[in-house]
Amino acid sequence: MPSSAASEPQIDDIRAAARRLEGRAVLTPLLESPPLNARLGGRLLVKAETLQRTGSFKFRGAYNTLAQFSVEQRRKGVVTWSSGNHAQGVAAAAQALGIPALIVMPADAPAMKVANTRGYGAEIVLYDRIKESREEIGTRIATERGATIVAPYDEIQVIAGQGTCGLEIAAQAKARDIRLDAVLVCCGGGGLTAGCATALAAETPQTKIYAVEPAEFNDTGRSLVAGHRVANPPGARSFCDALLAPTPGEITFAINKKLLAGAFAVSDREVARAMAVAFADFKLVVEPGGAVALAAVLSGKYPIKGHNVAVVASGGNVDRETYIAALQQG
Amino acid sequence: MPSSAASEPQIDDIRAAARRLEGRAVLTPLLESPPLNARLGGRLLVKAETLQRTGSFKFRGAYNTLAQFSVEQRRKGVVTWSSGNHAQGVAAAAQALGIPALIVMPADAPAMKVANTRGYGAEIVLYDRIKESREEIGTRIATERGATIVAPYDEIQVIAGQGTCGLEIAAQAKARDIRLDAVLVCCGGGGLTAGCATALAAETPQTKIYAVEPAEFNDTGRSLVAGHRVANPPGARSFCDALLAPTPGEITFAINKKLLAGAFAVSDREVARAMAVAFADFKLVVEPGGAVALAAVLSGKYPIKGHNVAVVASGGNVDRETYIAALQQG
Repeated sequence: MPSSAASEPQIDDIRAAARRLEGRAVLTPLLESPPLNARLGGRLLVKAETLQRTGSFKFRGAYNTLAQFSVEQRRKGVVTWSSGNHAQGVAAAAQALGIPALIVMPADAPAMKVANTRGYGAEIVLYDRIKESREEIGTRIATERGATIVAPYDEIQVIAGQGTCGLEIAAQAKARDIRLDAVLVCCGGGGLTAGCATALAAETPQTKIYAVEPAEFNDTGRSLVAGHRVANPPGARSFCDALLAPTPGEITFAINKKLLAGAFAVSDREVARAMAVAFADFKLVVEPGGAVALAAVLSGKYPIKGHNVAVVASGGNVDRETYIAALQQG
Repeated sequence: MPSSAASEPQIDDIRAAARRLEGRAVLTPLLESPPLNARLGGRLLVKAETLQRTGSFKFRGAYNTLAQFSVEQRRKGVVTWSSGNHAQGVAAAAQALGIPALIVMPADAPAMKVANTRGYGAEIVLYDRIKESREEIGTRIATERGATIVAPYDEIQVIAGQGTCGLEIAAQAKARDIRLDAVLVCCGGGGLTAGCATALAAETPQTKIYAVEPAEFNDTGRSLVAGHRVANPPGARSFCDALLAPTPGEITFAINKKLLAGAFAVSDREVARAMAVAFADFKLVVEPGGAVALAAVLSGKYPIKGHNVAVVASGGNVDRETYIAALQQG
């Protein structure tokens, strides 16, 4: 086995994750809208991870990881950091498994995400996203408690769990005799992208996989071009709060570099329009960060004409005010 | 066979409809939110028919009926009347089967519903809901063309199609080992209610079935008490545009009278709150008429504490402005 293989999840890890998640995670539907297809001149499939437990795909990776904790690890608990979706995923998985959880969250995270994370019984420590390091705070607390850190994306079993979303897309398309030309995945740290790419490369190797990012947080796109990991500029802004990771992950980028066909970047305005289309044509509440892949198709960045394309709608945890503003703008 | 049986759909008609719809309709998920369950002290399952083709359950009954048309019927086309959801269901089913469709719609129907119905290739005739009779207009046109009328709810094969929603609820609950105490169904003319009641009475006879209506359109509730069909008062108002039928259907009421445990009525304000909860806790866009069953649970009209209850979220075809107003109020 090449040395890289040991540090990256393999398709069998994703299949094992799928077995762990069976009956625990929602088998989310792959939706389409014939009138929208007619307008686009292609076939667009939306994987509705907004309907996943905790309102985003993050439950998959969190549960897959925590379910493999030893008795000792379960007793001492889990520590993580997250702007909100991984936080809720870890909190819900920990609650389901009876594991204490502490989450470091930015003080400016959407109120709904903080409230829901607390609702799953997790302890929360807020930090200042500009002045403090969430990794430092989380690592210090984990050391004090002997707790296990489950980072949001750069963890093999987290990536394997997120990959079950890709497995399902492949199976759901196959069941409907659809040959997928491309799958577009919302990309922050790259865990969902790397997991889905690993699954899809095994299940439907002719399908091209693309990451989609907010315009000012296109670190994965620029890293793919550079051939190594580059960071987002300081002061970059986007209302896609779920996708503000400063750089691609080490493991996730190693995978994405091998498996992705490329990346697209979309503006906040294009994202708002995608949220409005998700509302009108799919009846799905999609949060800004969850709508970037859809935005890449609707804005024409990925030219869908004559193609079969799946996009992941990765989460729906959005405050009412933000959502209303997006619908009014979109 | 008793004479009533011939004029009402039987469980085998619903099972046959399920076979016709396989791969055509979306197998919509039965969703739940553990944090909301914790707040309610019971287990609430939401059947997301908002994700059905055309954005409401109506595709089920329409497709089941049109798929059984003779060659002659297919050629001469279908005529119907509807405020919008049955219109879209018939238009989409007709388009899928290559059948010409003409739909009589109220001039004040939500713009989205009119636009979508036209988008499925149907011919549309608008009428004045106060001054004209949609049945008269539709019947005249159908007679001129030799077209077949498929009324919105008082049709055996339409009811059988809607009943597949109840079949799925029973199967999805069973697969998760959930014994349902009650199922609450959004009720206008009563087709979905009668179909689901027929399916659930066969599949899970211990489960109680309730109709839920807007407060001023509680004709089914009052008819159940009276023992015969009574009409809503002239001038009754509700923003639940999908549920404004003037009286229960003849066939639907005969079924509902036998099978329902009762009915609940909810105010527009309770509906708006249910729409806001569907947004926040389920990430579902639900239209006013699709939220009444959820509203009956959230308002405490059905006391859920300690119970397992499924509600149908029957549709999501709502204009942006109406939706935003509901979120702001709810």
